[in-house]
Amino acid sequence: MSIVLYRDSQVRVMENTVTNAEKYFGQFCSLLAAYTRRTARLRDKADQLVKQLTDFANTENPELRATVRSFAEDLAKVQDYRQAEVERLETKVVSPLKLYGAHIKQTRAEIKKFKQVQKNEIKQLEKLEKLRQKSPLDRQMIAETSVQRASADASRTTHQLEEMIDTFQKQKLKDLQKIFSDFVTIEMVFHAKAVEVYSSAFQILESYDLERDLERTQTTIRSQRRDEEEEEESTEHSAEEDPVEDLRGQGQAPQQ
Amino acid sequence: MSIVLYRDSQVRVMENTVTNAEKYFGQFCSLLAAYTRRTARLRDKADQLVKQLTDFANTENPELRATVRSFAEDLAKVQDYRQAEVERLETKVVSPLKLYGAHIKQTRAEIKKFKQVQKNEIKQLEKLEKLRQKSPLDRQMIAETSVQRASADASRTTHQLEEMIDTFQKQKLKDLQKIFSDFVTIEMVFHAKAVEVYSSAFQILESYDLERDLERTQTTIRSQRRDEEEEEESTEHSAEEDPVEDLRGQGQAPQQ
Repeated sequence: MSIVLYRDSQVRVMENTVTNAEKYFGQFCSLLAAYTRRTARLRDKADQLVKQLTDFANTENPELRATVRSFAEDLAKVQDYRQAEVERLETKVVSPLKLYGAHIKQTRAEIKKFKQVQKNEIKQLEKLEKLRQKSPLDRQMIAETSVQRASADASRTTHQLEEMIDTFQKQKLKDLQKIFSDFVTIEMVFHAKAVEVYSSAFQILESYDLERDLERTQTTIRSQRRDEEEEEESTEHSAEEDPVEDLRGQGQAPQQ
Repeated sequence: MSIVLYRDSQVRVMENTVTNAEKYFGQFCSLLAAYTRRTARLRDKADQLVKQLTDFANTENPELRATVRSFAEDLAKVQDYRQAEVERLETKVVSPLKLYGAHIKQTRAEIKKFKQVQKNEIKQLEKLEKLRQKSPLDRQMIAETSVQRASADASRTTHQLEEMIDTFQKQKLKDLQKIFSDFVTIEMVFHAKAVEVYSSAFQILESYDLERDLERTQTTIRSQRRDEEEEEESTEHSAEEDPVEDLRGQGQAPQQ
């Protein structure tokens, strides 16, 4: 009789395995989906920074402009790699975890079917017991046949359940290994690319010659000043004639 | 007279420089602060994943437990580096940008002061012009002295303003180079560390022997089964005496 108990404990083991997998893989799925979304949001923010850097570059002198633009391009490149990271995480990590969730539901349905078969065996056994106490032999024999049939069913499905446990466990470990290996590979590739691009960006920022750029800017200011001073000399005469004339005009933007 | 115009254009150049810096550095500041916050949120999500992986590991057999734990530890290590990244971004990127904002406000106040000096020069010139047309010579001379004084003030502050433009420009370029170099360095260090840790995590996941682990699990199940079958044989006699006895007990959890 304890074969019934054994079958019951088998179902319990299986149910625990499935419940456990459902719980943890469900959480892995939603956490990794959130991780992916937050990575995408980080990319969005960096994309905005790229845009602002490009706009800023356009307001600066050629040398600084070239430096800031190159830097912005590198930063954009990192975001392209981050976008690839996001897409690959969705395809190779989040989607398989979602599929795994469907697989678990299917397994749960199989267990339910098995439990019904098991229930039938118990019902037939109880029926037989009642008949033994008060029924004629022929009816007992009919009941015993039913018990045998129910037991055979239960035995067959127990065997199926055992195979299912093995397959389920194997699939779980395989999926776990595959999904997290893919996660690590995707992250590793992204980080390696980022190191590569940032190394180039660092070179660009380091090679920017601040002193030379400043010298050029000051030269430009000085030459502007010289131009204006020369202009001043040439207009000195008319300025002497009407010194307020210029003042009246000075509310307008100087045309240069 | 066009020295007044020149001074006015100097102020305009300065104001544009400051407005431009205020606009873009302000945006860099808020974007990089947001980038830092989103990085922190990504770390939070990964921390949750680490926690779930550790919980999950505790529900599994020793071999898988060891693998998942090691993997979770590596994932946690990446988050520690991400935390360092977040702290360094705050200290070496966001804070200097905020400080730069304060520096810009101060410069703006200096420009305002200069504009008042310039306004005074213009006022004295206008006064002189009026006096020239209708006042006695001595009053004109007093006015000319005032103009000279106002012009000297304006000339001195113009010189100061020129120096301020140079200093401001130099500081801007220096800060820009420093802040973005620091950003790149911080990111580069984080990504390099992440590559290092994920390489180790990848080894851990790869070295997990699924087949061996499964074999062991199946052996355990089989030995459990054998134990129960032996138990079944030894209790066979009593089971025959009262087959329903076991059934009544089967609602309770099996004691194993």
